[in-house]
Amino acid sequence: MKTTIANVHKHVNETVTIGAWLHNKRSSGKIAFLQLRDGTGFIQGVVVKAQVDEETFDLSKKLTQESSLYVTGNIVEDTRSPLGYEMQVEKVELIQEAVDYPITPKEHGTEFLMDHRHLWLRSSKQHAIMKVRNEIIRATYEFFNQEGFVKVDPPILTGASAEGTTELFHTKYFDEDAYLSQSGQLYMEAAAMALGRVFSFGPTFRAEKSKTRRHLIEFWMIEPEMAFMDHDDSLEVQEQYVSHVVQSVLKNCKIELNTLERDTSKLENIKAPFPRITYDEAIEFLHEKGFDDIQWGDDFGAPHETAIAESYDKPVFITHFPLEIKAFYMKPDPNNPNVALCADLIAPEGYGEIIGGSERIDDLDLMKQRYEEHDLTGPAYQWYLQLREYGSVPHSGFGLGLERTVAWISGIEHIRETIPFPRLLNRLYP
Amino acid sequence: MKTTIANVHKHVNETVTIGAWLHNKRSSGKIAFLQLRDGTGFIQGVVVKAQVDEETFDLSKKLTQESSLYVTGNIVEDTRSPLGYEMQVEKVELIQEAVDYPITPKEHGTEFLMDHRHLWLRSSKQHAIMKVRNEIIRATYEFFNQEGFVKVDPPILTGASAEGTTELFHTKYFDEDAYLSQSGQLYMEAAAMALGRVFSFGPTFRAEKSKTRRHLIEFWMIEPEMAFMDHDDSLEVQEQYVSHVVQSVLKNCKIELNTLERDTSKLENIKAPFPRITYDEAIEFLHEKGFDDIQWGDDFGAPHETAIAESYDKPVFITHFPLEIKAFYMKPDPNNPNVALCADLIAPEGYGEIIGGSERIDDLDLMKQRYEEHDLTGPAYQWYLQLREYGSVPHSGFGLGLERTVAWISGIEHIRETIPFPRLLNRLYP
Ligand SMILES: [Mg+2]
Ligand SMILES: [Mg+2]
Repeated sequence: MKTTIANVHKHVNETVTIGAWLHNKRSSGKIAFLQLRDGTGFIQGVVVKAQVDEETFDLSKKLTQESSLYVTGNIVEDTRSPLGYEMQVEKVELIQEAVDYPITPKEHGTEFLMDHRHLWLRSSKQHAIMKVRNEIIRATYEFFNQEGFVKVDPPILTGASAEGTTELFHTKYFDEDAYLSQSGQLYMEAAAMALGRVFSFGPTFRAEKSKTRRHLIEFWMIEPEMAFMDHDDSLEVQEQYVSHVVQSVLKNCKIELNTLERDTSKLENIKAPFPRITYDEAIEFLHEKGFDDIQWGDDFGAPHETAIAESYDKPVFITHFPLEIKAFYMKPDPNNPNVALCADLIAPEGYGEIIGGSERIDDLDLMKQRYEEHDLTGPAYQWYLQLREYGSVPHSGFGLGLERTVAWISGIEHIRETIPFPRLLNRLYP
Repeated sequence: MKTTIANVHKHVNETVTIGAWLHNKRSSGKIAFLQLRDGTGFIQGVVVKAQVDEETFDLSKKLTQESSLYVTGNIVEDTRSPLGYEMQVEKVELIQEAVDYPITPKEHGTEFLMDHRHLWLRSSKQHAIMKVRNEIIRATYEFFNQEGFVKVDPPILTGASAEGTTELFHTKYFDEDAYLSQSGQLYMEAAAMALGRVFSFGPTFRAEKSKTRRHLIEFWMIEPEMAFMDHDDSLEVQEQYVSHVVQSVLKNCKIELNTLERDTSKLENIKAPFPRITYDEAIEFLHEKGFDDIQWGDDFGAPHETAIAESYDKPVFITHFPLEIKAFYMKPDPNNPNVALCADLIAPEGYGEIIGGSERIDDLDLMKQRYEEHDLTGPAYQWYLQLREYGSVPHSGFGLGLERTVAWISGIEHIRETIPFPRLLNRLYP
């Protein structure tokens, strides 16, 4: 019977065959321990000379890393392994011998590993990160489906942008100029007026010449937009969503978090509600902490976000930023028109901003005024204005950066390991 | 109590408030019937002069299409409506009056509607199509999650392509040349070697100057790739997947299929297994039907696919195409090396090909030979070849075009209505 490593728990004390790769190996005289992987998991196969034919034992001793195999054996419980099972091998068949696999268990430089990303993904750590990423995606769909959101795919190719074209990738769209989308938000607002509550999940692009551990050129965003929901309603959805994602990973990625040596005690408490502080309070706090490089009206840098986050054991909302440092479409606070009904959500442990969101301007005249102040013209702004002309309603939305969320939950240093094939300054390969 | 139209069934004989837009209206002397929509659904609100204050009744008579409202009233069962409920209105509050909404219930030309796509999405038919699309997406994640597939996002920006650059959008990636991906398949093969079974769901781009009812410039694809799965295994996954999607839409989109006037009897029978015919049999069948414009070695056109599909009440697999008209990576049939272990899945009712798939070449020497025959050089082919060098295994995959699938299941003529903001030749707006 063929099965996968993820499914061996259904075959305890049965003989099964698994297609797999040799991940690692230990052997001494009359026994060989094969660390096998098949993509669904890792299992140890034990080959005892006295219990197999000579061919299988000789092969097992000679097997090279990443050779492909069919391995047949009896599944037994094994409380010492993370999986809980091991295989008493009866037969090993070689599919292909891998000669001189480039990534050995020794240390390699980052550039070397990145050049071999198509193979590096097979390592146990990278495998674990990809499984955590997958669980975050799965839990995202689960959450928004349960809450009645409709998935809407905004266009990637657009004729113009909400925030200038300097950081946009350009292409010729037959005879026109087109740009790769940095955010689907304007489109999601149109969709919310048609479908009530919507969310997108797709790639976004930023042609930014920055090279930090938090930046990717191509990254994935989740952008929900909700009609008849105000700023406070939106914060509730955000904290419920992030809690659901974290708790889902804790529940469904135990083996992977163990592989990543993630301190899960730092994740267990991530449950709604999350603390909220205003921008004003954050500035005051930073001054008290001795930061003299930030004044009211400045945006936070990474050190500021980290200092604020350190005061909390959950993500923290920083709300009511100065209007002038936020996007043109954010709704001013009726109680203080210098600040916006907006929030950034800062992850714990120095992982920085993972969500930016706001209530949107719904007043036609105020939006027209913003267009004049920001000199916004062009076709995209024509149709966007019509959303305020024909049945405008209060509405809010936010964007979550998938890769930063993967980095935080996985507990890894650099965002380049959070996406299967990262696109960085100077990296378009593989 | 605030609620949404989708949730009124939880509030029968209760007074609730709904944020909504006026979709349509009928009134006579002492009664007004408001067709309300809030994105989650459509409901009729009945305003009886004798039962509301004068302000509410006067407002209800004057309300214009797409004005935004808060409507309060009692929810009662109503077996005549598709929803099963209506509201006995007690109060109407105007949020914003929409003056001269451009899309009236009368007929409009296609270009006018496409120019107003940001508003057109609010119409009941477009709303229904977007909900069907959403259900197909939801069911896709459900299926692949249940089957143990890991979602993998291949890069959109790539340095080279499997199929030449003539139909690719080009951009400058800092100092390098980059192209928008037409398929993530090569990357998904690398991912399958790391994660076993993977699927992608993302946008793809084809800079093709064709203008048919089946073509989009930007469209979404689902591309599963499976290690240790041969051609026949892959066909089984495909028919299970498509069946799951169709049955999910039938179950969860009853109102929308009714709005679309879809003949659901044509969908009920879409259950695995699906019929399989070989390319040879298909050619023979077409000759018997009198087609003299196709010979062995030609690819099928739309009329051929339609003629073949008409013989079946399910999607049909056409298998074993001539190797020379298929992609370089397809595995030759060991029993007949002139044909590939591949299949196209043709939807019923003239909707054409919705899936293309194959077993991939796993032999290193044969792949090298293909590189020479097809003159494949460049960085992308270097790493792709390494997948055959280090632990190559039998593997198969396929790609499903989301929009064609939405068109078929929704029963609509033109693919431009299957995506929120279509990108067509000459259409980059809104
Ligand atoms: Mg910020
Ligand atoms: Mg075809």
